[in-house]
Amino acid sequence: MLKFEIDITSPHNKARLGRLTLSHGEVETPIFMPVGTQATVKTLTPEDLYEIGAGIILSNTYHLYLRPGEELVAKAGGLHKFMNWKRNILTDSGGFQVFSLSKLRKISDEGVEFQSHIDGSRHFLTPEKVMDIEQKLGADIAMCFDECAPYPCSFEDAERAVDRTTLWAKRCRDAHRRSDQALFGIVQGNVFPDLRARSTEELIKLDFPGYAIGGLSVGEPKQNMYEILDYLHPLLPADKPRYLMGVGEPEDLIEGVKRGVDMFDCVLPTRLARHGTAYTYRGKLTVRNAAYREDFTPIDSHCDCYVCRNYSRAYLRHLIKAEEILAHRLLSYHNVYFLVQLMVKIRNAIREGNLERFSEDFFSEYRF
Amino acid sequence: MLKFEIDITSPHNKARLGRLTLSHGEVETPIFMPVGTQATVKTLTPEDLYEIGAGIILSNTYHLYLRPGEELVAKAGGLHKFMNWKRNILTDSGGFQVFSLSKLRKISDEGVEFQSHIDGSRHFLTPEKVMDIEQKLGADIAMCFDECAPYPCSFEDAERAVDRTTLWAKRCRDAHRRSDQALFGIVQGNVFPDLRARSTEELIKLDFPGYAIGGLSVGEPKQNMYEILDYLHPLLPADKPRYLMGVGEPEDLIEGVKRGVDMFDCVLPTRLARHGTAYTYRGKLTVRNAAYREDFTPIDSHCDCYVCRNYSRAYLRHLIKAEEILAHRLLSYHNVYFLVQLMVKIRNAIREGNLERFSEDFFSEYRF
Repeated sequence: MLKFEIDITSPHNKARLGRLTLSHGEVETPIFMPVGTQATVKTLTPEDLYEIGAGIILSNTYHLYLRPGEELVAKAGGLHKFMNWKRNILTDSGGFQVFSLSKLRKISDEGVEFQSHIDGSRHFLTPEKVMDIEQKLGADIAMCFDECAPYPCSFEDAERAVDRTTLWAKRCRDAHRRSDQALFGIVQGNVFPDLRARSTEELIKLDFPGYAIGGLSVGEPKQNMYEILDYLHPLLPADKPRYLMGVGEPEDLIEGVKRGVDMFDCVLPTRLARHGTAYTYRGKLTVRNAAYREDFTPIDSHCDCYVCRNYSRAYLRHLIKAEEILAHRLLSYHNVYFLVQLMVKIRNAIREGNLERFSEDFFSEYRF
Repeated sequence: MLKFEIDITSPHNKARLGRLTLSHGEVETPIFMPVGTQATVKTLTPEDLYEIGAGIILSNTYHLYLRPGEELVAKAGGLHKFMNWKRNILTDSGGFQVFSLSKLRKISDEGVEFQSHIDGSRHFLTPEKVMDIEQKLGADIAMCFDECAPYPCSFEDAERAVDRTTLWAKRCRDAHRRSDQALFGIVQGNVFPDLRARSTEELIKLDFPGYAIGGLSVGEPKQNMYEILDYLHPLLPADKPRYLMGVGEPEDLIEGVKRGVDMFDCVLPTRLARHGTAYTYRGKLTVRNAAYREDFTPIDSHCDCYVCRNYSRAYLRHLIKAEEILAHRLLSYHNVYFLVQLMVKIRNAIREGNLERFSEDFFSEYRF
């Protein structure tokens, strides 16, 4: 089940304000989806995420397939029940992880043979197998199995990945049965506009309810990413949700929304938290720095989250230095809140017709 | 500020039901105090602990003195404010940690020279210095600086520790100024009844508002601990709270209460959680065991905590195997809840005059 309605399209840029209705409720778009790789958004409970305002999270098929296995999750009643999450979930297809995390053994049109990054065991994933896994996990949105070419790569390699992604997208669509789960196609093509156009065109023929833009934020300059988004804008169906995979940083969310993106996900808020870094509207704050030893102000005085209302930089720095897990937990909470709330502000700006000014204000304050 | 009132003394054993009024509110006794060594009960927020029902926590002077330092905590407005905890705190004196954690350099009647377990730096703690630190931390209950003899040790060594503990208790009492902080004496004497009696007698002369029993649960057989408690019962002032330091396991709480103990603390609930083990009314459950891979029941079907209401053993085991921090957090929550609620049940049993039956029922179910 998927319904997508666009309420406002910005007259100044390509931003859209909309609503996505999924099997576990409606979410407003553009939206940021926190990442729960191994059936948990690291350190946080579902209740924390409800409080933060997250309406949909992402989980990783590659990780869940390897551990604990999709059969176990299915026996638990599906991923929602297994992890006690009552709102929406999107599962990626494992395509990106097979190419980035595992030891790749062999790739053919049939599928991918790889070795687990956990125990070295050998596995073979095909589009049909991935559909089986994703349907057993039972997320509200599933992604097609795709081949994500690295950056940099030759035109020929990128072309081969596009063709295979199209072939696999067809097979995924044919193998997909769950009516309570929406299946999205993934546009590949690396930094080559012609290939992006070809990939988009071929996927549109398959008529997916939503389209992801894959293979970006994999090392290419940000300017390349923005150009690809600009280029893809008129090619993608205007009435379908657009999801920019694995992105992004606060600035990417703003630049992406201005280029018509409706959905984002990124592991950075929880990863930065583990390294003692917090987002603020003035840039990233390395809380572990000695400068904050006696700083009794909150992480961000403009933030009204649970952490900023109750804890000082000095206390958080103490927790980091003392290697206390509560440091990861509190910084994760703040960072996820920061991005979820940034999207609330972005949506309000679209609603009020002043996204351009919001963007200018943001970039005048935010230090890189 | 400290008021202690005993409402019921059990006619069948030495258990007492009472109320302890401290600067940050009243708590019912007997009570279990979760341990927040480094100004955090590992993985949990104050709100978690309020929900669990904790009214007083313990924090460690030795750790906070070394990191972040009592001056920083004082600048933050004291330990309560620093860590965002609105209920009561007890700080130990660092005596036990100096002897168990640090590299001990020299001990004399004047004080203890030791090397930090963190960076090897040299420090010298005297009773006066410890009082200065504890008053800067600003807990509701502070402990006298004591010498904790190891187990096993000779009568002569234990005797020297008792005499020094008495000498230091006098100096602590003389150096202590804060009227919003209650200072407790610590009875030492190892497993020697004569020394326990001497220590108790000498401390009573100093008229502390509460007395701790130190130097137990340091390796001696449990039977020795219970015998010392039985022996001390008639010697300690009946109208003052009695605190058994660093104890204990569920069975110790029951046995301790039956021997007149009013207060307990122990790091085990959070430490066991880090090792993937959970308390249940049928004994400890090693959640990480393969036996629970497909067990979709809660940790303890008799437990109504947040974790048992929402998560299965299979999910918790998955989190443990995947090395997810949420595993520590959820198991810590459950284990602390288990001990705090065990004390609620014990208090109810005293109130209803059936502690003996409660104890029999507990031990008939609990497997060691």
